[in-house]
Parts: sequence; structure tokens; C-alpha cells
Amino acid sequence: MEFSSKLLENAVYEMSQLPGIGKRTALRLVLHLLKQPEERTNLLSTALTKLKSQVNFCKCCNNISDTELCEICANTKRDGTLVCVVEDIRDVMAIENTSQYNGLYHVLGGKISPMEGVGPQDLTIQSLIERVKKGTIKELIFALSSTMEGDTTNFYIYRQLEGLEITTSTIARGISVGDELEYTDEVTLGRSILHRVPFESSIKAG
Amino acid sequence: MEFSSKLLENAVYEMSQLPGIGKRTALRLVLHLLKQPEERTNLLSTALTKLKSQVNFCKCCNNISDTELCEICANTKRDGTLVCVVEDIRDVMAIENTSQYNGLYHVLGGKISPMEGVGPQDLTIQSLIERVKKGTIKELIFALSSTMEGDTTNFYIYRQLEGLEITTSTIARGISVGDELEYTDEVTLGRSILHRVPFESSIKAG
Repeated sequence: MEFSSKLLENAVYEMSQLPGIGKRTALRLVLHLLKQPEERTNLLSTALTKLKSQVNFCKCCNNISDTELCEICANTKRDGTLVCVVEDIRDVMAIENTSQYNGLYHVLGGKISPMEGVGPQDLTIQSLIERVKKGTIKELIFALSSTMEGDTTNFYIYRQLEGLEITTSTIARGISVGDELEYTDEVTLGRSILHRVPFESSIKAG
Repeated sequence: MEFSSKLLENAVYEMSQLPGIGKRTALRLVLHLLKQPEERTNLLSTALTKLKSQVNFCKCCNNISDTELCEICANTKRDGTLVCVVEDIRDVMAIENTSQYNGLYHVLGGKISPMEGVGPQDLTIQSLIERVKKGTIKELIFALSSTMEGDTTNFYIYRQLEGLEITTSTIARGISVGDELEYTDEVTLGRSILHRVPFESSIKAG
């Protein structure tokens, strides 16, 4: 792609560094901004730089927060004995949307992935262990994605917890509500039979 | 979607104002930037604000350019008697990529669209007419998209040119090179028969 302007080329290049944004999409986005009033561009760039420079992570669970303790950790009505371990703040938002969970969270910031150069020291595993050592947490729920990396991370944390008095659990894997049995992969179907639940409890969950 | 931070919410909101970027994609992009070093965000926002504040349009053809006259208009080896009328600088880039055109361009900046509130005065039609009145241009090639709005714009310009000595043409519509006849829509197939070209010239075009 040949550009008639260095400024344009530069803006398109920086935009195309975002994940899933190719050169063509980047050009479309940049030309859209060019057609909009100048405030639009300024609002976007200020919002991004302000977020990056002023962002704060909850000192307890590592969730993004404007205050020292995030709203969830600061909420005394929530169950402080239950902590759900997730990769990312998007997972916190997804679980919060279900309105089915009243415990706290711990955001790891990723999962162990030697392929991408992410080791345990890049995640907030150490602060999780310290949280557990304080003794108020009774159960850790692992809610990482069920990939090789997710399983590795679960297992790594599990090993670090040895000797500490804590129950660990993992969220149920099974067939999605509304899905057809015949289209489900064998691993999921197999697990959902192994980990079957009493019929009464499935009625209660609605 | 509920956010744990106003700063994050604001950044996601501004990002989701871009065309084709929904709230979920915006969140993914913003979280990606959060994980990157601060320079990345700064480079992106500086590139965007710099482009918007310093952008310059060629005073002749309205193409984006860092100089007063764009490289194409300033190139004396190009044929100044031929001007291709396009909507957008992306069309200039597309035609330049073919290496089949040696004339100049005129970028309208859009097409007449009453539905989107774009009238003739919002485009660079007046400056095109003035360019034609100078007398050096012999042929205008309309290369707008073949939609209702494109056709309206073509016709509007054509009417404005009445009384001026100029040839007007439009780029050929037909079946794409490599396409199968049976899958082509009737309008395109019909036009490609009406506007058939001598076999010899199709051999030359390769």
C-alpha cells in the first residue's frame, strides 16, 4: 500500500498494530476520523493516554479500578471466603453479568504460556498465594479457559497451595444450555456424563 | 456492560465510536493497549492527533498530501489532460496500484447522498468545475461506485459541465476477470454485452 502522506501512513501503521486490525481496516478507521470533527480524535486519544497513565489495579484482586480497592473487594456484603480465579477483567465482567456469584475475584492477568513467553512471575500468582495465606479464604474456584495453558496455570497454582488449608474447585464443563447432544464434541460430552449433577439441583438452577 | 473503572469505560466508549468496532471489540483493543508499554498508546494517540491537526489536502485534486501539491499533481510526466474523478483517497490508491493510469485525479470526498445529508456543496465539485474551466483538461473519467448515489453524483457533475468543451467517460462495468458467467447478476452481464469491446483490444490489455 502506497500512501500519499507520511502522516497518514504513520497513523495507519499505528492503528494496524492493534490486534485484529489489518492495514485496510486501519486505513478505513483513520479516514473515518479524518472526516469527523477534530474533537472526536482528541477525545479518543486523550481517553487512551489517560487510561494508560492513570490506570489503577485493585491492590487486592488486581481488577482495574479507579479506587485503591475495587468496588467488588470493597463491598462487605460479598462473600470474602470465596475467590474466583480468572485470567482477565473481561472474565470478571462476564461472571458478574450472570448475577449468580457473590464471592470475590482474583485477576491473574493472563495464563502461563511458554510459547508466548509468559511465566508464573508475569502473573499475579504470588499475590494470590499471599491472599490465601491470610486465612480468610476457604475456597478457590478456578475459572480459566479449558486450554492447555489454562490447565497448566490451574495446576501450577494448585501445587503452590500445597500445605495450605483451602478447598479448590473448577467451574463445571459441560454442554451449553440449549445445545444439541449430537453436535457436542466427545470430550465435553464425556466430561458432562462423568460430572453429572443430581437432578434436583439442576431444577433449582433453573 | 458494566465497568469497574470510569477511565476504562470512557476509553472503550471512544473506541467503539469507530465504524465497525462494537463494545466487545473496543474492550479487547483497549485491554490490549493496557498490556503494552506506555509508548505504544502514546505513539497511536500522537499519530492520530498529529494527522488530524496537520493534515493537508492537495490544493489541486484534494488528495491527502504533506505538500501543497500532491506527488501525483506535481509529477510533470503524468498526463494533465486526463482527470479521473473518485470518491475517496482509497480509490486513488486502488487505481494507482493497477499501474494502468497515467493521468491526474480529483477526489470528491464522498458522493451526493440526501439520506446521509451529503449535498453537492459538501463535496469538491465546485473546485472540479473550476479546474475544467481552466481549459487544460480534455477528458474526465467518472470512477464512482455504481450505486444510486454514485450515479446521481456523476449526473450532477455532468449537468454542471454543460457548455464546457470536455469529453466525459465512465470506467467499464462488466464481469470481473476470472469470474464465471453463470454466477454474474443480470444487470452486469447485460451491460457487459451492450458495452462489448473489440477482441483485439482485449488481447492487448492482457
